[in-house]
Amino acid sequence: MKKNVLIIGAGGVAQVVAHKCAQNNDVLGEIHLASRTLSKCEAILESVHEKGAMKQTGVLKAHQVDATDSAAVAQLIRDTGTQIVINVGTAFVNMHVLEACIETGAAYIDTAIHEEPDKICETPPWYANYEWKRRDRCAENGITAILGAGFDPGVVNAFARFGIDQMDDVKSIDIIDINAGSHGKYFATNFDPEINFREFTGVVYSWQNGAWNENKMFEVPKIWDMPVVGPSQSYMSGHDEVQSLAVNYPQADVRFWMGFGDHYINVFTVLKSIGLLSEQPVMTAEGQEVIPLKVVKACLPDPSSLAPDYTGKTSIGTLVKGDKDGREVEIFVYNVADHKEAYNEVGSQGISYTAGVPPVAAAMLVANGDWDTKTMVNVEELDPKPFFALLDQIGLPIRMQVGGLGGEDKAWNEEFTL
Amino acid sequence: MKKNVLIIGAGGVAQVVAHKCAQNNDVLGEIHLASRTLSKCEAILESVHEKGAMKQTGVLKAHQVDATDSAAVAQLIRDTGTQIVINVGTAFVNMHVLEACIETGAAYIDTAIHEEPDKICETPPWYANYEWKRRDRCAENGITAILGAGFDPGVVNAFARFGIDQMDDVKSIDIIDINAGSHGKYFATNFDPEINFREFTGVVYSWQNGAWNENKMFEVPKIWDMPVVGPSQSYMSGHDEVQSLAVNYPQADVRFWMGFGDHYINVFTVLKSIGLLSEQPVMTAEGQEVIPLKVVKACLPDPSSLAPDYTGKTSIGTLVKGDKDGREVEIFVYNVADHKEAYNEVGSQGISYTAGVPPVAAAMLVANGDWDTKTMVNVEELDPKPFFALLDQIGLPIRMQVGGLGGEDKAWNEEFTL
Repeated sequence: MKKNVLIIGAGGVAQVVAHKCAQNNDVLGEIHLASRTLSKCEAILESVHEKGAMKQTGVLKAHQVDATDSAAVAQLIRDTGTQIVINVGTAFVNMHVLEACIETGAAYIDTAIHEEPDKICETPPWYANYEWKRRDRCAENGITAILGAGFDPGVVNAFARFGIDQMDDVKSIDIIDINAGSHGKYFATNFDPEINFREFTGVVYSWQNGAWNENKMFEVPKIWDMPVVGPSQSYMSGHDEVQSLAVNYPQADVRFWMGFGDHYINVFTVLKSIGLLSEQPVMTAEGQEVIPLKVVKACLPDPSSLAPDYTGKTSIGTLVKGDKDGREVEIFVYNVADHKEAYNEVGSQGISYTAGVPPVAAAMLVANGDWDTKTMVNVEELDPKPFFALLDQIGLPIRMQVGGLGGEDKAWNEEFTL
Repeated sequence: MKKNVLIIGAGGVAQVVAHKCAQNNDVLGEIHLASRTLSKCEAILESVHEKGAMKQTGVLKAHQVDATDSAAVAQLIRDTGTQIVINVGTAFVNMHVLEACIETGAAYIDTAIHEEPDKICETPPWYANYEWKRRDRCAENGITAILGAGFDPGVVNAFARFGIDQMDDVKSIDIIDINAGSHGKYFATNFDPEINFREFTGVVYSWQNGAWNENKMFEVPKIWDMPVVGPSQSYMSGHDEVQSLAVNYPQADVRFWMGFGDHYINVFTVLKSIGLLSEQPVMTAEGQEVIPLKVVKACLPDPSSLAPDYTGKTSIGTLVKGDKDGREVEIFVYNVADHKEAYNEVGSQGISYTAGVPPVAAAMLVANGDWDTKTMVNVEELDPKPFFALLDQIGLPIRMQVGGLGGEDKAWNEEFTL
């Protein structure tokens, strides 16, 4: 049994993580929250207390830390007696936080691939550039490191694994992420604009016919008839989970599809075409060196500010196709989340909610030993069933459509035959 | 007779001014070019020499100066024996340069209204905020100051005056600026993006029914069937010349129409809606204070870089309606310029060309005494005929359509009856 959680980060996802940890502090023990800006941690703590989210009396504390300083993070882990770190800070800090976990023996959970500020869309598989280089050291030191345990990557990887487990072999994995919600602003991203835009400014990597395939963003469109939200325009996009699923299931085509409306595409295209999404500095006429993307971020609404007025639903799932007993079979596993319900429960919008609940479920599985792997893993390497059971229980009900999208709709744990 | 010209600025318009001064150095004497960045002045000098533009052997020299430092500009005026300053630097420097002229007795010519960096679209008439406050001092000191002597403002004001001179009374003045050229870039502005965008982020002031009228940008569209380039979509816009024509002809409606394609409007709308055209600083997550508009400027192509590939024509004119002998009459006075021809002659695109040739014509009229007013004037207060004659001669042929747009087409100095 592992106890005491340190949450790194204080954005919209961290807020959800803090609430969910508080709601489950009988399992997780003390809850510590640390980021560069102490006041942001304190605001989250206040919101936890406002909602009366603590399941039982216990420690809930804010700390200031520079998460790129591994030694400082390690010291904080020791000072707080943390055994599980949930890292939902910016993706730029990931390897620094992981190093602190390797040093201290704490379990590590994150929700996105590590990124270096000045590099976009490195050589696939991306996990091999930073995370997997530390896999042997995790195994040697018995460090539990669960990579990409948000919704996507994370829950959708478990969806894939669940589907694959029903088959003799897998032929294709299509992950489909549709946000049919509306925030009422002219334009906003649902999480850190810097990370959001970086996802779409590089090459779109997919794994098809046993090889990495390259496309441009918005080059490959596809309409999917999604549960609850209906037919939705999407585009093949590069995304973390493709990078591990392709390695773990090289026999399958692995693609990621993100829903985009025409307005998002237009704004994105204008900003990108002008060079305003660049992570490389430009020099103003006055001689100031500036990274355009950081200025765009400064101009856009803070994603957490969208929550109060956000309406509508997300519908995100994984379509797995394969063979069973010599027949072609399909299954679509998914979740539908509601922005307004998320706000009412934890004060965050649905995108933060779907990203923040899963790492808490993962932490609970590490705490109870089910997922305490003592090595580095991606989510599809783990048994999805206890994960689904916990997600159902703490706010993300998991369903499936047997026979593929539009098939018979069931809860994931109902009886079915492919 | 005044002699020796100091050109302030080293952008695309300054390049045209330098070439045209060189082509007329028999009238203008020594030519000095000064800006914040010496190397930009030197590049312009090199291009003048490449084209062999100097009419006769003479002085052509580059200087470094901070044009916001009036004392430094005054010293440069004295050191160079300058009697005529052509100020085509950014509009932020205008009053600093004018002060240097008042101090030294040099004549002053500019092409745009003075702007303060942190203020957009001040109370009309804009000239009253900065320029006209110095009118009495110009008169007392016998300073010739010709305001807004580019194309628009400038030549279009003379077009208005020419039309009005044919009538008993004027009822309306519509200035129409259509650039039907193509630069082949995704997006670019034809002059300093900072000044360009600032023109359209504020209130659209027009003068109608004897009062200032307020509209939003892109609120009032109108298609004009322009000479040579044909039917062109335009929008009522705020512009310098409205600000003086309304005061000088309060009995007339005065409007300015700028041609915009859907693509420009889309890019502008995206950038403005997000806040990227703001002249007010924002703070990045890293704590850097940045003015978004300056970053947009840094990302966009340098307007002077558009010249080599620019094709097509500009068609800009003034439609004047009024009464003569009890009848309603109309006249449209205009110029058509060709981007490629401009580039071949002076290495600049057509917008820079049309903006840069007129202040040189004005300087030549100051030099020969025709426009040596010994006080501050806007262009419509001056006799347009010697101006048109010079413009015809140095590269901007002036034509008219008698009876209004689509009427009988003639050179401005042909016989006609309204």
